[in-house]
Amino acid sequence: MNGLTHFGEDGSSRMVDVSDKKITRRMARAEATVLMRPETLRLIRACDVAKGDVLGVSRLAGIMAAKQTAALIPLCHPIGLDRVELAFEFPDERSVSVQSVVTCEARTGVEMEAMTAVSVAALTIYDMCKSIDREMEITSVRLIEKSGGRSGHFVRDSKTS
Amino acid sequence: MNGLTHFGEDGSSRMVDVSDKKITRRMARAEATVLMRPETLRLIRACDVAKGDVLGVSRLAGIMAAKQTAALIPLCHPIGLDRVELAFEFPDERSVSVQSVVTCEARTGVEMEAMTAVSVAALTIYDMCKSIDREMEITSVRLIEKSGGRSGHFVRDSKTS
Amino acid sequence: MNGLTHFGEDGSSRMVDVSDKKITRRMARAEATVLMRPETLRLIRACDVAKGDVLGVSRLAGIMAAKQTAALIPLCHPIGLDRVELAFEFPDERSVSVQSVVTCEARTGVEMEAMTAVSVAALTIYDMCKSIDREMEITSVRLIEKSGGRSGHFVRDSKTS
Amino acid sequence: MNGLTHFGEDGSSRMVDVSDKKITRRMARAEATVLMRPETLRLIRACDVAKGDVLGVSRLAGIMAAKQTAALIPLCHPIGLDRVELAFEFPDERSVSVQSVVTCEARTGVEMEAMTAVSVAALTIYDMCKSIDREMEITSVRLIEKSGGRSGHFVRDSKTS
Amino acid sequence: MNGLTHFGEDGSSRMVDVSDKKITRRMARAEATVLMRPETLRLIRACDVAKGDVLGVSRLAGIMAAKQTAALIPLCHPIGLDRVELAFEFPDERSVSVQSVVTCEARTGVEMEAMTAVSVAALTIYDMCKSIDREMEITSVRLIEKSGGRSGHFVRDSKTS
Amino acid sequence: MNGLTHFGEDGSSRMVDVSDKKITRRMARAEATVLMRPETLRLIRACDVAKGDVLGVSRLAGIMAAKQTAALIPLCHPIGLDRVELAFEFPDERSVSVQSVVTCEARTGVEMEAMTAVSVAALTIYDMCKSIDREMEITSVRLIEKSGGRSGHFVRDSKTS
Repeated sequence: MNGLTHFGEDGSSRMVDVSDKKITRRMARAEATVLMRPETLRLIRACDVAKGDVLGVSRLAGIMAAKQTAALIPLCHPIGLDRVELAFEFPDERSVSVQSVVTCEARTGVEMEAMTAVSVAALTIYDMCKSIDREMEITSVRLIEKSGGRSGHFVRDSKTS
Repeated sequence: MNGLTHFGEDGSSRMVDVSDKKITRRMARAEATVLMRPETLRLIRACDVAKGDVLGVSRLAGIMAAKQTAALIPLCHPIGLDRVELAFEFPDERSVSVQSVVTCEARTGVEMEAMTAVSVAALTIYDMCKSIDREMEITSVRLIEKSGGRSGHFVRDSKTS
Repeated sequence: MNGLTHFGEDGSSRMVDVSDKKITRRMARAEATVLMRPETLRLIRACDVAKGDVLGVSRLAGIMAAKQTAALIPLCHPIGLDRVELAFEFPDERSVSVQSVVTCEARTGVEMEAMTAVSVAALTIYDMCKSIDREMEITSVRLIEKSGGRSGHFVRDSKTS
Repeated sequence: MNGLTHFGEDGSSRMVDVSDKKITRRMARAEATVLMRPETLRLIRACDVAKGDVLGVSRLAGIMAAKQTAALIPLCHPIGLDRVELAFEFPDERSVSVQSVVTCEARTGVEMEAMTAVSVAALTIYDMCKSIDREMEITSVRLIEKSGGRSGHFVRDSKTS
Repeated sequence: MNGLTHFGEDGSSRMVDVSDKKITRRMARAEATVLMRPETLRLIRACDVAKGDVLGVSRLAGIMAAKQTAALIPLCHPIGLDRVELAFEFPDERSVSVQSVVTCEARTGVEMEAMTAVSVAALTIYDMCKSIDREMEITSVRLIEKSGGRSGHFVRDSKTS
Repeated sequence: MNGLTHFGEDGSSRMVDVSDKKITRRMARAEATVLMRPETLRLIRACDVAKGDVLGVSRLAGIMAAKQTAALIPLCHPIGLDRVELAFEFPDERSVSVQSVVTCEARTGVEMEAMTAVSVAALTIYDMCKSIDREMEITSVRLIEKSGGRSGHFVRDSKTS
């Protein structure tokens, strides 16, 4: 046994059998950071409806992508979602932090939905700003917190960030 | 004018009009890096068909995601693709580098297809290994090269990596 | 607070958190009307399997679209559906009335599924008849009835129709 | 022959053979109107990023739906799109007019893409405002203009509107 | 070299590079046979709009599935389609033969689109009749003819059927 | 009444109302057989990661297709899935047997998910090997077992195979 639950004893990939797991409330939070030139970030922050709402488009893309997670990640279970929210922070003059929270009540968690949401939101920022800053970079895509399910409450140690 | 072509003069988002652009051969290469514990990487590398092919699943997920780019990234143009390939490298004992190359012959480029492919391939590695290493992190998602189109040949300066 | 639940306090769009809502049986009925030339309607009504079943194709398109609602309407929750039915009536010599009923057992209602079903069914009628009647028009797309959920039983006042 | 090109001689539905048509530049414009209470419209118009951008979400939903047209309308051809834009007008105190323009270079037109875009944009407005105005109604979904292709330039007679 | 073009020299799967292939008119025809009890077939054939059009639903499902081929078959190229038609024959008292023809003008063929169309059409017949004949079986899913492209004109030898 | 539950009394197709059915654990197993030349099968079986993993790609395609069943089969209910697994056997020198098992806890069964999984897995084998063996054929796509739900436990009589 190698501990990778997505593979059977003979190594074949599978959608793990969760039928014996309990239906519980599950929550996951993830984040991604988009690095860019300071002038790109200034432009994004200056944007309002009259000039082009980069973050509004990014947020919607992330929410819609969360709903497509099971179609994108081959071995993910298709589940209903009760909540998807994205938020943005600006930790320094060249970074946009994209943060998601997703909840459901299911036999399996929503880590991948939270991770997919921030990834696609970050890709969408890249798409909209690539004409002025082709070297933007998406970094630190990671799980921040997770609750519900047998493995218990996980909170990422911020020192490892 | 703010230089963000995905927004009109009044700031409304749009799928940019490319009808006056020339149909040319376009190519884009992107990469993402997945950081993990050395034992996780050793497990992935040890895997073969008999034990669970993490990278094979990731590669397919990336190829299939490239085809869904226009459905994921709101303002992307839907285009046909002539080639999608993904490869993996192991730059050090805790990193998997995911690399993509995508080509098409169209009025618009395939940067987003290349970026989406590596992002979803990386997310799939996370999904398959999260049961043994929840703190894995996706980093350095970026465009490496791009050719075709009016903006010319772009090669990322490796020193900025 | 502006009463628009799809936006947070800072105005950012979100998939509303329904985790505290009860799972109840939900039902929604909607309708749309397609206006056309009398000869177009005569042709549709004369159609049977031997000549081209416009309404059969429209009905299937509506049923299948109901299942895509969460992928189309950005802030809709993805939910399972227990029933989708569409019916047609001919209130006068130039009108096809498309009617849907959708049910589920969930934390959120199926108004959008019912509305999306009649909209796409109506668009499909337009698609199949546009070669002979390009000025067809879809009108009166609206919710007729809704039950289940905290907001109670809604029946549209027919006088407002 | 009944003139309905989507059906064969025996009445069976089909995706029409367009292989003998010329590849030409095609354009279509459509519109839909969302009727609502004056206070609902005032709220939408007052909205900016700080309070909830109803029209921004609707616009993106319409653009993304245009790309899904061939998946929604059963007999539509899948084609690439060169441009999708949506705009809003407020013809009176209770109406939002949603307008689309779509272009491509293909063997078949983009009427259905333009019609689908305004329909889904209008449904999205309904979704976001239904908590405060359940009796909103989508009306006058129609083709406004179309060019390219054998059937020539079509402009809807505004008197028939 | 093993002749399997979907794999690179190191065995990794890929979407084959077709950028050097010529754009030509491509056509493919496929068929599938659904075996059932004679009374099931009698019911299907007796069906008209008044009693339930099994074959009409199956035909639409096949046409729509052809358009989803690149999303279903991992290494297929996404391409536009110029024509998709399905037909049914009844070779004996317990068989429905489903036949497709698909054309495009592209760098790669449409065999998989034709094969996917008949497969999903056959699955849809199974779905609609399974409540009365659970042991129905889909058989002889195969390519009948193919033209365009470097490999030349292929017609299946009927003796091998 | 003709026994075809997917049609109403007037013959119109519908997604059957399952709201009065009980939520129970459901399971379905299906299989498909791909016939090919002995040398094709030898090549597939010889494949490992170093030479091209045909069956690994096929397996993933089948798992992902199971999740798309409700989007492909027009009258299928959208449901969550708890488990999807595929396996391969080689009953003779020219046959690959593809076998699936799918489970859920729902008001309706997963026969179509199991049937769709083996069909798309088989089509994917065809896609990957068609360059060396165009006359491969998919046969014996059928339900093997089904449990849960009102109709009781079904096991296909192997003599009818």
